[in-house]
Amino acid sequence: MTSATLAQIRAASPLIHCITNYVTVNDVANVLLAIGARPIMADDPEEVEEITALCAGLCLNIGTLNARTIPSMIAAGKRARALGHPVVLDPVGAGASRLRTATALRILDEVRPTLIRGNISEVRTLAVGTGTTKGVDANAADAVTEENLAAAADLLHAFAARAEAIVAVTGAIDLVTDGRDCYAIRNGRAEMGQVTGTGCQLSALLAAALAAAPADPLAAVSETVVLMGVAGEIAWAQMGEHDGNATYRTRIIDAIYRMNAEDLNARMNITKL
Amino acid sequence: MTSATLAQIRAASPLIHCITNYVTVNDVANVLLAIGARPIMADDPEEVEEITALCAGLCLNIGTLNARTIPSMIAAGKRARALGHPVVLDPVGAGASRLRTATALRILDEVRPTLIRGNISEVRTLAVGTGTTKGVDANAADAVTEENLAAAADLLHAFAARAEAIVAVTGAIDLVTDGRDCYAIRNGRAEMGQVTGTGCQLSALLAAALAAAPADPLAAVSETVVLMGVAGEIAWAQMGEHDGNATYRTRIIDAIYRMNAEDLNARMNITKL
Amino acid sequence: MTSATLAQIRAASPLIHCITNYVTVNDVANVLLAIGARPIMADDPEEVEEITALCAGLCLNIGTLNARTIPSMIAAGKRARALGHPVVLDPVGAGASRLRTATALRILDEVRPTLIRGNISEVRTLAVGTGTTKGVDANAADAVTEENLAAAADLLHAFAARAEAIVAVTGAIDLVTDGRDCYAIRNGRAEMGQVTGTGCQLSALLAAALAAAPADPLAAVSETVVLMGVAGEIAWAQMGEHDGNATYRTRIIDAIYRMNAEDLNARMNITKL
Repeated sequence: MTSATLAQIRAASPLIHCITNYVTVNDVANVLLAIGARPIMADDPEEVEEITALCAGLCLNIGTLNARTIPSMIAAGKRARALGHPVVLDPVGAGASRLRTATALRILDEVRPTLIRGNISEVRTLAVGTGTTKGVDANAADAVTEENLAAAADLLHAFAARAEAIVAVTGAIDLVTDGRDCYAIRNGRAEMGQVTGTGCQLSALLAAALAAAPADPLAAVSETVVLMGVAGEIAWAQMGEHDGNATYRTRIIDAIYRMNAEDLNARMNITKL
Repeated sequence: MTSATLAQIRAASPLIHCITNYVTVNDVANVLLAIGARPIMADDPEEVEEITALCAGLCLNIGTLNARTIPSMIAAGKRARALGHPVVLDPVGAGASRLRTATALRILDEVRPTLIRGNISEVRTLAVGTGTTKGVDANAADAVTEENLAAAADLLHAFAARAEAIVAVTGAIDLVTDGRDCYAIRNGRAEMGQVTGTGCQLSALLAAALAAAPADPLAAVSETVVLMGVAGEIAWAQMGEHDGNATYRTRIIDAIYRMNAEDLNARMNITKL
Repeated sequence: MTSATLAQIRAASPLIHCITNYVTVNDVANVLLAIGARPIMADDPEEVEEITALCAGLCLNIGTLNARTIPSMIAAGKRARALGHPVVLDPVGAGASRLRTATALRILDEVRPTLIRGNISEVRTLAVGTGTTKGVDANAADAVTEENLAAAADLLHAFAARAEAIVAVTGAIDLVTDGRDCYAIRNGRAEMGQVTGTGCQLSALLAAALAAAPADPLAAVSETVVLMGVAGEIAWAQMGEHDGNATYRTRIIDAIYRMNAEDLNARMNITKL
């Protein structure tokens, strides 16, 4: 696999509608600009259908969901799907509260997203319908490792087939499957977990990738998961002795802004399972 | 023209009330601190009139407007005007949804802001009462260029006269008019559009400028539009080979923090039309 | 005093529930990650009790309070206290509007927080029940100085005893008291006030400290106030000639990420009153 998706995103410059949490929203906007896409954030029920109709893709992120924005997500999601736009669901914290689990399951059921991107605990919660998520990070006990890789892939494979969606689970090893093929990706760095919102950023980038490269959605998703990991690797290589997670945050987005196909292909570590 | 506004802002350190979007709010707060003003964000209907009464200026930004904050904007805006405080309207995305267009027009009508600052598509939407904004960036077809400069200036001139407000449109060429005089400003860099919120930041700075330099509002606005562009130029000159839009974001605010009258006057590129 | 709290936070990695303002929320999340804790933001009434039950501590920050989040703060606060979790109240802008003053007093009364962290104007407002806060910064007339230190300490001492809480007031000189002992801390730099949210960040760090080091809450709080000040000093020492408050913002969080006990103890400037 060589990455074509980045060039397609830069060529198409898709406008991406994000209904997303207020913790990481600024980084989500800047990372979309970094990759060559364009963000618009709008979450009021009165306008979300109109806004999403202007766009090429939609990212629904439940990180700070509330009674006002849940109906907005459902309405925007349905409208986007009716228009044939890709919809990404980032089920932040699914399993941590009944509201989050129920909302994510409701979006799965009513919107039928194109892609679900989360950590293993969140996605496991959706796959089995109940969860044990502790906060917004994956539980250590759930982590995808070399030892349980096959079992995790089987779970996600079955879930993707049932949800008729691509499923992307990110962690030390990332897994991407459309219910037929499954890829394991070993890019990125553990320190990315010390920057809030790298997962939210990836979800938004995936909406841009699906919008700009619709011919092969599984490739678009896999390549963009690789790109985020490679950005984390390149950014880490720039870190100085006094730099910490705040500088790393900046450097990751910078690395996406500066990403080129050569670096991406040279560092890409992806295996078909 | 030599810039006096910066010194006046630093001397007065005006407290600026912002009802603004959650995408760029942190940068808006830090840029106000960078220039020597002080921010306060408050958007609940129950407190906005009291908060704005404490302040010297108000910035209304509809970037993530909702059913709760629209009445807050109207109430704060009316109170600020009754107290003689300058009110800036940033009509983010006017033309992209009926809610945004209607809200911006309602603020124009009921609040009568001192200044409207937007991109050409947003301001054209307000000037003609209907729009074709695609997202939160100006349409390429609307862009102010050397070729259509006179026509754009005429449109804005007439709109400013009718709205009894200063109108500032920013883009490759910025235009500022109070309905009598009109200035074209050719500072800034195209890459500023790859950082989310540079427009939001400018709108907040303009509220500070109008609060601190009330004697000549058109000069205060023009000089502050220049300042934002010069900050973008200085910041770009600091960029290293690995830096991208995230570092540029930081450097722009830093440049405002470090701005001095010499650099500002040396780089100022403003023409009376 | 030598600092043990930092090591305890890193060892325990407490999950901290924040109901906080949208201006500085990203920095609050990243600073918690920098120190080795983990953030979760959730503010809808339907989920806050469940979320806080998963966590080890709670931070209530009224910086952009609204009609939906005030009941969330009360409910989460009561639940956290019932579970024996530490609760920090950051009464941002208390005194600037009746809503802020009344909400902060209601949280004091109904939640009985473990710690109140604010600037002198905010805390004075709560101590005397009415206030003169001008915005979100302390009034110059209220500032704690070498001259009025004893009087300020007496006020806070009495307030802490009455509220049965630790009180931490930060400014040029920080004061920390549990109603019995009182410490004055002379770390930090005035330029920290030119970065929005360093106070919000400290409040969240204090929730992590209280969660991770419950044996001696006053020491945990004092050492963490010192840590924030030392981070500001170390970060300032890294500043280059073109850097401003935006770079300083990044460097402060970086300094917390890189903080070690040696630097902390070497720079610690704390006096028992």
